Amino acid sequence: MNHHLEVIPLGGVGEFGMNCTALASGDDMIVIDVGVMFPGNDPLGVDVIAPDISFLRENRDRLRAIFLTHGHEDHIGGVSYLINEIPLPIYASKLTLGLLSGQLKEHGLYSSVELHTFLPRRPIVVGNFTVEPIHITHSIPDTYSLAVHTPAGTIIWTGDFKFDQTPIDGRLSDVSRLSELGDRGVLALLCDSTNCEFASLAASEHSLYEPLANIFQKAQRKIIVACFASSLHRVQIMLDLASRYGRKAVPVGRSMIANIHAGLELGYLRATPELLVHAGEARQLSPRETLILSTGSQGEPMSALSRLAVNEFKNISVDPGDVVILSARVIPGNEKLIANVTNHLCRRGAEVYDSSFFPVHVSGHGYSDDIRLMINLTRPRYFIPVHGEYRQLRVNAALAHQQRIPADNIRIIENGDLLRLSPTGCDVPLKVTSGRRFMDEGEGIPEEVHEMVLRDRRFLSEDGFVVVIMRMGRGTGELLGDPELISRGFVVMENSESLAGAARAELSNIVAESSVEEKQDEELFKEILRKRLKRFLRKETGKRPMIIPVVLEI
Amino acid sequence: MNHHLEVIPLGGVGEFGMNCTALASGDDMIVIDVGVMFPGNDPLGVDVIAPDISFLRENRDRLRAIFLTHGHEDHIGGVSYLINEIPLPIYASKLTLGLLSGQLKEHGLYSSVELHTFLPRRPIVVGNFTVEPIHITHSIPDTYSLAVHTPAGTIIWTGDFKFDQTPIDGRLSDVSRLSELGDRGVLALLCDSTNCEFASLAASEHSLYEPLANIFQKAQRKIIVACFASSLHRVQIMLDLASRYGRKAVPVGRSMIANIHAGLELGYLRATPELLVHAGEARQLSPRETLILSTGSQGEPMSALSRLAVNEFKNISVDPGDVVILSARVIPGNEKLIANVTNHLCRRGAEVYDSSFFPVHVSGHGYSDDIRLMINLTRPRYFIPVHGEYRQLRVNAALAHQQRIPADNIRIIENGDLLRLSPTGCDVPLKVTSGRRFMDEGEGIPEEVHEMVLRDRRFLSEDGFVVVIMRMGRGTGELLGDPELISRGFVVMENSESLAGAARAELSNIVAESSVEEKQDEELFKEILRKRLKRFLRKETGKRPMIIPVVLEI
Repeated sequence: MNHHLEVIPLGGVGEFGMNCTALASGDDMIVIDVGVMFPGNDPLGVDVIAPDISFLRENRDRLRAIFLTHGHEDHIGGVSYLINEIPLPIYASKLTLGLLSGQLKEHGLYSSVELHTFLPRRPIVVGNFTVEPIHITHSIPDTYSLAVHTPAGTIIWTGDFKFDQTPIDGRLSDVSRLSELGDRGVLALLCDSTNCEFASLAASEHSLYEPLANIFQKAQRKIIVACFASSLHRVQIMLDLASRYGRKAVPVGRSMIANIHAGLELGYLRATPELLVHAGEARQLSPRETLILSTGSQGEPMSALSRLAVNEFKNISVDPGDVVILSARVIPGNEKLIANVTNHLCRRGAEVYDSSFFPVHVSGHGYSDDIRLMINLTRPRYFIPVHGEYRQLRVNAALAHQQRIPADNIRIIENGDLLRLSPTGCDVPLKVTSGRRFMDEGEGIPEEVHEMVLRDRRFLSEDGFVVVIMRMGRGTGELLGDPELISRGFVVMENSESLAGAARAELSNIVAESSVEEKQDEELFKEILRKRLKRFLRKETGKRPMIIPVVLEI
Repeated sequence: MNHHLEVIPLGGVGEFGMNCTALASGDDMIVIDVGVMFPGNDPLGVDVIAPDISFLRENRDRLRAIFLTHGHEDHIGGVSYLINEIPLPIYASKLTLGLLSGQLKEHGLYSSVELHTFLPRRPIVVGNFTVEPIHITHSIPDTYSLAVHTPAGTIIWTGDFKFDQTPIDGRLSDVSRLSELGDRGVLALLCDSTNCEFASLAASEHSLYEPLANIFQKAQRKIIVACFASSLHRVQIMLDLASRYGRKAVPVGRSMIANIHAGLELGYLRATPELLVHAGEARQLSPRETLILSTGSQGEPMSALSRLAVNEFKNISVDPGDVVILSARVIPGNEKLIANVTNHLCRRGAEVYDSSFFPVHVSGHGYSDDIRLMINLTRPRYFIPVHGEYRQLRVNAALAHQQRIPADNIRIIENGDLLRLSPTGCDVPLKVTSGRRFMDEGEGIPEEVHEMVLRDRRFLSEDGFVVVIMRMGRGTGELLGDPELISRGFVVMENSESLAGAARAELSNIVAESSVEEKQDEELFKEILRKRLKRFLRKETGKRPMIIPVVLEI
């Protein structure tokens, strides 16, 4: 067999979100993470965006398993869309499996899938691959870097990480194992690039206790905290502070309730049963003893926080003197949604703390010195930046070069690049199919929205459409009655009778000027109608609506 | 006459952008600024957003003049849309008039409008108003705060400002006049809130020379700077550095070329003629002697910078080793567009400096201590925060309270509030019509896009549409032939023959189940078709396309 290892990113390299990468060695292929991303402010009816899996489909006979690094949506949110088509065993930490199972149950896949708990330093052998989880710190517990041992050598896939020396759960990164692997020789390090532009080390999650405690101490009325429901370290901090300052915690929002439940059940959250109160009973608490733990830190319009902000949340109101803490990063694209929610909260008299002016959030991704430490521990032959847009990949590559990895041994790849690694070389011989699947959750199982449909929606959102109905005498090519014009999103036709009249006259002219042959070829005639009406409307209105001619022979 | 002054913000209070405020005293009314805002990432075919001027229309007989504080688009961009309907004399500084005239010429209004140059300390009397411009520093030269003297007292309208002690053009803020007015008694201060959340004083524009000079000094190849074309101080810095480091400046992008031209002509920019080179001649320069001054700092898709980034700019390319400086703030909502351009520039091998990691931009809006100084100079009876979203208005109000303005004398208002001020009181007795006009520039004069049209476009962008054409026998209510279904942006009907078939069957059922009376009432029958097909498609697909039934009687 050849001693090449192939690394094929299908998502999350050259972009943020929907992380998904295939590794291939000989006849075997495995997948690391299957995440999603969200469409933000410009949804076009799309609920969630998942990686194109054409390449995995083509290689379904080689596929052996999925390995998950941690339980964030951008790493596990697309698992259903893959195993729905290609059933594969899944290896993940206990918490990751706990968070994944909600998704699998929702999509009716839970009973049929093969789930394996994956434990630190307990490697799993799958064909040519021996995959070893290495505990690492991040904003969610039970996160792994992966050491993947192959005939070509060992690669280290950092996943999302920072070196938090005071993690909330007391479980440190397994630095000694990383160093040991470094001693033995690492073929390649595939390294998180998210925060590589920030100097120094990322702050510890623990550093939030003090500034948050100050807010808790001062607050005289309700405290409402919005954070990512899956960031259980953050939730733990809030539960600890609630307990310390005599408040009860009220989880609101579906995923917050579900994740707190899962976290407690699996032992990743610590709280006395009395600490937690159902939203239905929140009214029995005085404002001074209330802590609301909410979803909606990104300003999502239907989230609990957005509903609280406009006073449309049952049993809970936002009142003057309440404190709202947005304890999360702002995902690019969500700025306006978040500002909107913040303004509403301010109008209700709440004091809003967010990370632009207050230390109420730290990132789970390492800064440049975390990355330097990772490089120094593992001393890889090749360095491949992942998890970032091109800008971050490039900065991370430069950073590795500063750590004395030769320029020839650093390679920037993007989604779809097939990277071939061996002890003697590193190249990208070809590009495979990659891209985005736009999923619409509709009422049932998520379905892919066809690209043509999305293109039409975008087009319609700009200038609307005009349907033209022409009744023509069968065989005669004679126009029967007036052409009918129906438009939406174009101009208010009722207000522009002169435009409608002129358009109808133009259509009559087209009929008169077209030959019988042209009119007998329906597709040709429709194309003539479309082109000429397009030109006419563009001249008259400067707009380019979608034009759909209908010719009815009578 | 009564001694009330009314302040009616129609834009820019409770939001950023499209600043526009009416002041009324007795029979007279004036307008301060008529700005626009831009739709960002979710355009729906809208090019520009201007304030609703219904209130001004209703008061056209009282309207006397427009006063402009400075030449940024969010303060002057909507002038045409107002004077187009209500011709009014315009008072503005020399530079502001220079920048405005481009807009007026483009819209064919230049020859008919009455323009007056407005000079510092030279008050203009218009009915009950005596309006006095006070020179103040901002990111554009020739900016004014306004002291408006009325029978009710004097108010100070800060406009956009910071106290820059080392302005690029050497013209300091007229602190002594502000202080003098403070001594005589100021009824109200209406104060910019943009940056009130930032501690201390805003940095001087001058502070950019050093960090930018460092970049110029190191750069071995082309330098490309993107900044707001109207921010002439910034442009001056770049011209100075070009001259100092042996580069020629090449303006690209329509507004950059026009504004540099206007700035030089009016004496607001200083440059030797040899310093500037046309884009067409840029190829004759070596990379080491080239400075490109570009529009597109917000990532606007058709801007010069965006075209440079994808190598679609005639005569100028972006090459490895080039330096790109994004010397501008990020307007919320544009983050993704800017990231997109940045990634393309990085792919071409350019080094990108932006304000998130490098000191390449300072704001033109004062921080909390600039605002404190303004309050301490003018010592107003009432304090009214303007220019900000609700969040900033609230923080600015709190800041004024810290400066010992009594809480009862601080009033947060929003667009449409009619604020009534007198020496003995301050209240909001009523709300007037206010809102946004969505303008489509089309090919000619900008036109308002009807709200219904926008609603339809948004709706179409989510789930598309289905047009149903039913041919019915006249009088018989009998369905002739198959119903025809035309859809776009919904699902790919060609791929779902079963769905189309089922929908046609459903339509036939509806015809069969409807009484002759129902079918004879066309509007009623169309409503029945719409409702039932909507329910059917929602059940089958989970989607809610716009449904448009067409009934043709034959």
